[in-house]
Amino acid sequence: MISSREQVTQMILAAKVARGLKWSQVAEAVGLSKEWTTAACLGQMTLDKAQAEVVGGLFGLPDEAVAWLQIVPYKGSLPTAIPTDPLIYRWYELVNVYGTTIKELIHEEFGDGIMSAIDFSMDIQRQPDPKGDRVNVVLSGKFLPYKTY
Amino acid sequence: MISSREQVTQMILAAKVARGLKWSQVAEAVGLSKEWTTAACLGQMTLDKAQAEVVGGLFGLPDEAVAWLQIVPYKGSLPTAIPTDPLIYRWYELVNVYGTTIKELIHEEFGDGIMSAIDFSMDIQRQPDPKGDRVNVVLSGKFLPYKTY
Amino acid sequence: MISSREQVTQMILAAKVARGLKWSQVAEAVGLSKEWTTAACLGQMTLDKAQAEVVGGLFGLPDEAVAWLQIVPYKGSLPTAIPTDPLIYRWYELVNVYGTTIKELIHEEFGDGIMSAIDFSMDIQRQPDPKGDRVNVVLSGKFLPYKTY
Amino acid sequence: MISSREQVTQMILAAKVARGLKWSQVAEAVGLSKEWTTAACLGQMTLDKAQAEVVGGLFGLPDEAVAWLQIVPYKGSLPTAIPTDPLIYRWYELVNVYGTTIKELIHEEFGDGIMSAIDFSMDIQRQPDPKGDRVNVVLSGKFLPYKTY
Amino acid sequence: MISSREQVTQMILAAKVARGLKWSQVAEAVGLSKEWTTAACLGQMTLDKAQAEVVGGLFGLPDEAVAWLQIVPYKGSLPTAIPTDPLIYRWYELVNVYGTTIKELIHEEFGDGIMSAIDFSMDIQRQPDPKGDRVNVVLSGKFLPYKTY
Amino acid sequence: MISSREQVTQMILAAKVARGLKWSQVAEAVGLSKEWTTAACLGQMTLDKAQAEVVGGLFGLPDEAVAWLQIVPYKGSLPTAIPTDPLIYRWYELVNVYGTTIKELIHEEFGDGIMSAIDFSMDIQRQPDPKGDRVNVVLSGKFLPYKTY
Amino acid sequence: MISSREQVTQMILAAKVARGLKWSQVAEAVGLSKEWTTAACLGQMTLDKAQAEVVGGLFGLPDEAVAWLQIVPYKGSLPTAIPTDPLIYRWYELVNVYGTTIKELIHEEFGDGIMSAIDFSMDIQRQPDPKGDRVNVVLSGKFLPYKTY
Amino acid sequence: MISSREQVTQMILAAKVARGLKWSQVAEAVGLSKEWTTAACLGQMTLDKAQAEVVGGLFGLPDEAVAWLQIVPYKGSLPTAIPTDPLIYRWYELVNVYGTTIKELIHEEFGDGIMSAIDFSMDIQRQPDPKGDRVNVVLSGKFLPYKTY
Amino acid sequence: MISSREQVTQMILAAKVARGLKWSQVAEAVGLSKEWTTAACLGQMTLDKAQAEVVGGLFGLPDEAVAWLQIVPYKGSLPTAIPTDPLIYRWYELVNVYGTTIKELIHEEFGDGIMSAIDFSMDIQRQPDPKGDRVNVVLSGKFLPYKTY
Amino acid sequence: MISSREQVTQMILAAKVARGLKWSQVAEAVGLSKEWTTAACLGQMTLDKAQAEVVGGLFGLPDEAVAWLQIVPYKGSLPTAIPTDPLIYRWYELVNVYGTTIKELIHEEFGDGIMSAIDFSMDIQRQPDPKGDRVNVVLSGKFLPYKTY
Repeated sequence: MISSREQVTQMILAAKVARGLKWSQVAEAVGLSKEWTTAACLGQMTLDKAQAEVVGGLFGLPDEAVAWLQIVPYKGSLPTAIPTDPLIYRWYELVNVYGTTIKELIHEEFGDGIMSAIDFSMDIQRQPDPKGDRVNVVLSGKFLPYKTY
Repeated sequence: MISSREQVTQMILAAKVARGLKWSQVAEAVGLSKEWTTAACLGQMTLDKAQAEVVGGLFGLPDEAVAWLQIVPYKGSLPTAIPTDPLIYRWYELVNVYGTTIKELIHEEFGDGIMSAIDFSMDIQRQPDPKGDRVNVVLSGKFLPYKTY
Repeated sequence: MISSREQVTQMILAAKVARGLKWSQVAEAVGLSKEWTTAACLGQMTLDKAQAEVVGGLFGLPDEAVAWLQIVPYKGSLPTAIPTDPLIYRWYELVNVYGTTIKELIHEEFGDGIMSAIDFSMDIQRQPDPKGDRVNVVLSGKFLPYKTY
Repeated sequence: MISSREQVTQMILAAKVARGLKWSQVAEAVGLSKEWTTAACLGQMTLDKAQAEVVGGLFGLPDEAVAWLQIVPYKGSLPTAIPTDPLIYRWYELVNVYGTTIKELIHEEFGDGIMSAIDFSMDIQRQPDPKGDRVNVVLSGKFLPYKTY
Repeated sequence: MISSREQVTQMILAAKVARGLKWSQVAEAVGLSKEWTTAACLGQMTLDKAQAEVVGGLFGLPDEAVAWLQIVPYKGSLPTAIPTDPLIYRWYELVNVYGTTIKELIHEEFGDGIMSAIDFSMDIQRQPDPKGDRVNVVLSGKFLPYKTY
Repeated sequence: MISSREQVTQMILAAKVARGLKWSQVAEAVGLSKEWTTAACLGQMTLDKAQAEVVGGLFGLPDEAVAWLQIVPYKGSLPTAIPTDPLIYRWYELVNVYGTTIKELIHEEFGDGIMSAIDFSMDIQRQPDPKGDRVNVVLSGKFLPYKTY
Repeated sequence: MISSREQVTQMILAAKVARGLKWSQVAEAVGLSKEWTTAACLGQMTLDKAQAEVVGGLFGLPDEAVAWLQIVPYKGSLPTAIPTDPLIYRWYELVNVYGTTIKELIHEEFGDGIMSAIDFSMDIQRQPDPKGDRVNVVLSGKFLPYKTY
Repeated sequence: MISSREQVTQMILAAKVARGLKWSQVAEAVGLSKEWTTAACLGQMTLDKAQAEVVGGLFGLPDEAVAWLQIVPYKGSLPTAIPTDPLIYRWYELVNVYGTTIKELIHEEFGDGIMSAIDFSMDIQRQPDPKGDRVNVVLSGKFLPYKTY
Repeated sequence: MISSREQVTQMILAAKVARGLKWSQVAEAVGLSKEWTTAACLGQMTLDKAQAEVVGGLFGLPDEAVAWLQIVPYKGSLPTAIPTDPLIYRWYELVNVYGTTIKELIHEEFGDGIMSAIDFSMDIQRQPDPKGDRVNVVLSGKFLPYKTY
Repeated sequence: MISSREQVTQMILAAKVARGLKWSQVAEAVGLSKEWTTAACLGQMTLDKAQAEVVGGLFGLPDEAVAWLQIVPYKGSLPTAIPTDPLIYRWYELVNVYGTTIKELIHEEFGDGIMSAIDFSMDIQRQPDPKGDRVNVVLSGKFLPYKTY
């Protein structure tokens, strides 16, 4: 009996290795971006019935797991508040080093408010470069102004 | 007597309010991007002599402060490990929710390694949108493969 | 020289005691709700020029402080992640005890997404009750659905 | 053998997905609000015998689980002190940003004391709005004055 | 200019040593228990005008400090979440070792609810004992049942 | 094979629900106070052979569990340093709010030293009260003076 | 105006360097062990009037500081829960590595209870050794059995 | 299959209760002090082949466990950084209260360096005392001077 | 079914003890340094197909585990942020005590930037010494200058 | 009046910027390595009288500061347990990622024990490399075997 989405994520990770699947293949089958699809498979997004069945088919999941994919998960993918994994830590470091800079510049352009992490999309691409290829990431979030009342 | 870069950052913040300066003006005067320049003024980057003198002039800093701007600072701009400010927290949340996704996709494309936070640049722009303007951020970091030895 | 909004908040708190002002009086003078106005005076919201001048006048603040009130503050009003003050702790406790319940019910009604803390308002009222008056709080936050992309 | 309420919560969550139940249906069967009933099913409230049997019937729980539902649980529904889930975090953020405001305004109206989290009720409703529907939450807690002795 | 209750507590502690006062004397002058009076002087309770003036007179406080004594303080008297002082730690240890026992026994007697820390009084007395005098503490808190709704 | 006292506590909790026992019944059978007996059953005290056999009989424990009850346990009954359960948190809050008060008053009466948490007893009683029954708790701990050497 | 014992400790440390005093000299003047005397000077023990005056004389402290030495201090000498200083960390490491061993052996010899940290003395000596002198520390604490009631 | 030393420690603890062994008996059989032997059995020291076989024989361990006893363990015996168990906490308290004192006195006698926790031994004995027996602990650690280079 | 690299690390550790293998033997078979090979076996590096098969053969791993060895792992090998194991703690201590020194000297030589932990190698050797053999470690990391943009 | 070594470190840092000194110059004047000398100036090592006077002369320190340089400092140079500065964090990351590897390899070569952080030296050099110069660091620590007793 499955009692948490985390168990489904474990099943997907195990099946991905066993079946040698790639996230880009999964995304193509689901018909959405590789970023959203991967996040969904890793337990951070909610799939609709059709999407869940595609994912279930690819990874060979039981019906119960397919049902769980359609339940809104408890989000947060990291085992510690400050991530130990070097790739993920670099992102934490960017937030730490550039945090006040990002804040100042968004406020200078838009006034008080935030960049949404919900009405949000992310695109990760390889950018060829003779001095070494680069990871190019575009983040797009709706600006939400603080309401005055 | 100034004994830390943080004191210089305080001076800059006080002068910025008193003089009504904008970060984009400072960046223009320094001749670099608004992202790098703001981070430098907030104590996260090291300025060369010419840059430090421009910043010192704009903010009316004493010579000792101008000297400190040329010293590599102890980096990290946040008062707590998990930021309380909503704008900055949203970025922490992105790292937390999308952390494993970013990791999976960069590894799928590049293999084991990281996206550099040092050979790195950031560009923040307003993206007009009829449903509400968006914050568009481009992050570019060199991919650094793990060395095998 | 003022180098942070926190110093302005200290000035306001000191003046409020010295002058015997009430938050409701401040709100009336500013022309907005007591909830928003108090949060603004406590360093959590940004005032426009007119609002800042009213607040500056009521509390006898220097011009530099009035300028700081118009700068977007670094938000977060609590000295520790888990608040020690009993009144504020009860709210933390509500989030802790009812957190998963709130999540389940909002998702059941709206699907995946969040209740905005930015496009948000709060109204606190006394609700007379023969068994002991009650604090009645209405929270209103726009529902923001997670974007699929 | 069941040795904690948490195991019963796991059973309920698993059965809810398997049987496709809604919290509002459970609440209707129990005859109480959806807020209290959901909190109870999620291990935060104590059910009486009749309520426990209704819940046990709906979710197909064994007798031992029904007995556990009638035992006062160790409360607290979150895996970390600062919640990572975005929906729940927004509530933590409200407490953090508005914490001192709530404190000031309740004290201004009532004097020293707290808003009870025990003699408390919560009502979550959809509030239709042309600019996007809102989540409307009414919190009602008895004011408890500090005793002088 | 005084901008927090904590500064008043510092003044009281300094004056107490300088003037050689005892808490029991302060309590007698205030006309309340030594427990409540001491907590109030240490920044945990709110005094009314008459009480504040008595305390101000005994400790030679300025008018501004007397005004602050009448403002509801941000409560919590300990510098760390787990107290390092041995006397106070023993109380933390009691909560840690006996916490679940206290919970079980109050629930067995009263059902689900809490012992109030607001409608609460405490009395600390020396209990002579030939094997070594004991500290006898009586805690009295109103039982507050969880509301069903 | 049982390898920790915690497993025995789990067995007792499971059997208590299954058999519908009350702590007061267990205490009566053991012949000691309900406070000590409950703490012992919850893994915080050490039972002698006779006591362990009584407890083993009541809860239907295997011999190995009865042997474990006679082993001094690793004490501490709470899953987090700051308890999330509201009833137990109120006690933590008392220590936090009244901590320095308790310290001052015990020192004023006894000089430097502590109130023992080892040579200690606790008694929890219902105190009828027309305005709502109260929980009355008497704590008695030997005063231990700091040794000078 | 002195408002905490910590300020007195700062004065003593500053004067000790300025005057080139040794703890053993202070202990001799006070007439107690170097361990107790040093702890007292570092803000961890309470001095009587005669002791405080001797210490005040040696370090040239003002009368107010001498009065503070006679007030029971808030104890705990370390700036972080896990000490960073290598000498002190080694002691923390001993507690961490040998903690369960110490527990097992004291319980094997004495039954359930603790070794007092209050009715306690410590003696630190150089133990000459051809392979390198050793630090020899004798700790003596009264065994306090857990009370059954 | 055993994959960590901790599993072996669990086996030993379970067998110790089942077989009614004492640490002093184990130490005698191993031919070393009770302090070292207990620490070794609790997963903090490495046994040689002969010692491991003696321990394996006494506790009835399988060959695989005997092999693990000869592997250097990951040390640290406490489940939390600040121990909750009262007996072990008293030792943490000693380090906290006396930490700076120990540091000052060792430096006064030896200069800069540390007392080794590796070239270290500990001896725990009962010290009869008419006012209550005492726990007498002798710690002996080689002094290691900081190297200048 | 294997759902994390950690399970593979457990298998390797168990097999290493059971088969009596040495890391240097594994490294020789893999054809890389003992440092990289050990880190890889402990779940910190990614193996290619040939390497994974060699490791799988030596430790008798199932095919699924061999597949997992070729997946980039979530890195970080320590159970706590501050390591309790004395050998590893000494390294943490070096970073803590020498952290600012390392920073100053690298910046003095190279300017602003970091020493890479990715384009990095480590070599650990025994250095015979009549006063006691030494551990000699050579760390080599590419200097990465902060980019100005 | 100087009451802590940290104040002296602040003076040195301020003077270093004002006077434009380099650590290598200071080391040359002191006659020791740049690593030890820098650590000493940053408050982590103890200077003898001659060394302190050289340092005092170079930085223009008052006599009282020169006296403090000869007092053993409370060590630890980082403001947070996990360093935020990217250069220092990379070292923390090395300990985290390679921690268990270092442990395994030192134990494989030397048996149980540690690499000393006290009888220790460090040498940081630029290593020219056509693909980008490298930071080469040699760490040398005496191996200290665990004592059996």
